[in-house]
Amino acid sequence: MLDICLPGTGGMLPLENRWLTCCWMEYQGNALLIDCGEGTQLALKKAGCKLSRLNTLLLTHYHADHVAGLPGLLLTLGNTGKTTPLAIIGPEGLRTVVSALTVIAPVLPYPIELYEAKRGEQGTLERDGMTVSFLPLRHSILCLGYRVEIKRKPIFNPEKAQALGIPKTLYKFLHRGEPVSYEGKTFDPDMVLDGPRKALRVTYFTDTQPVKTMKEFARNSDLLISEGMYGDDAERGKMEAKGHMIFSDSAKLARDACAEKLWLTHYSPAMPDPMPYLQYARNIFPNAEAAKDGQKLVL
Amino acid sequence: MLDICLPGTGGMLPLENRWLTCCWMEYQGNALLIDCGEGTQLALKKAGCKLSRLNTLLLTHYHADHVAGLPGLLLTLGNTGKTTPLAIIGPEGLRTVVSALTVIAPVLPYPIELYEAKRGEQGTLERDGMTVSFLPLRHSILCLGYRVEIKRKPIFNPEKAQALGIPKTLYKFLHRGEPVSYEGKTFDPDMVLDGPRKALRVTYFTDTQPVKTMKEFARNSDLLISEGMYGDDAERGKMEAKGHMIFSDSAKLARDACAEKLWLTHYSPAMPDPMPYLQYARNIFPNAEAAKDGQKLVL
Repeated sequence: MLDICLPGTGGMLPLENRWLTCCWMEYQGNALLIDCGEGTQLALKKAGCKLSRLNTLLLTHYHADHVAGLPGLLLTLGNTGKTTPLAIIGPEGLRTVVSALTVIAPVLPYPIELYEAKRGEQGTLERDGMTVSFLPLRHSILCLGYRVEIKRKPIFNPEKAQALGIPKTLYKFLHRGEPVSYEGKTFDPDMVLDGPRKALRVTYFTDTQPVKTMKEFARNSDLLISEGMYGDDAERGKMEAKGHMIFSDSAKLARDACAEKLWLTHYSPAMPDPMPYLQYARNIFPNAEAAKDGQKLVL
Repeated sequence: MLDICLPGTGGMLPLENRWLTCCWMEYQGNALLIDCGEGTQLALKKAGCKLSRLNTLLLTHYHADHVAGLPGLLLTLGNTGKTTPLAIIGPEGLRTVVSALTVIAPVLPYPIELYEAKRGEQGTLERDGMTVSFLPLRHSILCLGYRVEIKRKPIFNPEKAQALGIPKTLYKFLHRGEPVSYEGKTFDPDMVLDGPRKALRVTYFTDTQPVKTMKEFARNSDLLISEGMYGDDAERGKMEAKGHMIFSDSAKLARDACAEKLWLTHYSPAMPDPMPYLQYARNIFPNAEAAKDGQKLVL
């Protein structure tokens, strides 16, 4: 099971009733966080995300609303008693930004490991059973989209196993893909498994213009979390020029990538309530939601 | 009139119901702010402080809970339409810290002017009619205390002026200290003024051990805002070792400096409610208050 939470949904600056956008994912007791603007440590606390489980921080880009909360987050993480490494992944410039921001958090009780994606690089890393992939986007500065996948074992079919006379104590070996021998016979996993299952897949895109490569990257996502700086289609031209997407951009992407569900996020402070604009997205992709701070899903 | 507001009262990390300590002072439409931890821009908004009036930022020291909000504050200040300079004053290291934190806020529509106090320096600057003085304190890193004063004109005595036959149109010149001539006679200001008035004085001390020089620096303050990391006297030894003051330390200081009023601030997150400990301060200095977020005073 993959737990997903969106502790904040705002862009540009934190508001009294809306934290800056960030995304928490937790799998088997290990968590990763995408972005940490000013106040994200409070947003996480309010949403019930346990900071002590955080091992990975993914940064989309280095605008303040996505990274200014880093020093506070790192220090508070130190106060949880963390001693194991924190990996920070981000686009080119990561070393410079982390060095700069930790000028005010120079001593931490755990090591930081940096993975700086090269300009234009598309890549994949394994983190605590989560497969993290990143894709270059198009914003006013270098920016990455992220996809998190949980590979799943095929479904075990106990009826097939029973019919073959395999004792229950051997099921677990077959389920994890190992052949077993019993009473002189050898059984292969595919004799009792119901074929491969699609990985759980969550994709996260802010801040960017629509880019062609996004569709393939997000294909078949169980959840696409994507930028909706504004709701009204009238804002498209201005927003595209600034490297942002509006509700209908993300809805088209969700539709074209065959996503299951779309959560809109990264709302402009000039749009205090996104709900009146949700129809702009639903007309294109009915399973769109204007996400609210603290929104959760378990896959 | 000097407006004073304490938008936050916490130390170490922002809490859901307590912002990090900072102090806003406003005189004749110009404001200064002492410290800006994570979330201070939200605390200011909640307290009704108009960011567009901010021309001066005083930093006590470079621990994250006092300065991590800088990039967000600078950017939001830019969004107010500010084009006039922002002065930032702080202890040695200011240039390094501001350069580092503005890596994520590289373009601002107004200039920043830095005044970096030398190690051990005690000094004074004039800012928008406010006299700002700073004093080296004793913390785990270099730290400054601040005093803000508003010099006041002496009281004009209209009865004296009337008795001398001076026409009312000349009162303003005498009140601002200029001699006037009328019908062949010369009148000096001290003929119609009731002697000097004490400056309005507000002193702000966090984070520090008690230091001897603080008493003179804070002498006759109308308001002393001073650290109360903990309330209980049992915490003194541990706090002093860490370079902090507790309620009774600040109360003694207020008493010895003959302050009018004491506001305690910079509470530990481990002390969610300071009120039960207020007596530790009031036993020494009765006019002590455990300040709350948004507390205001007009002098």
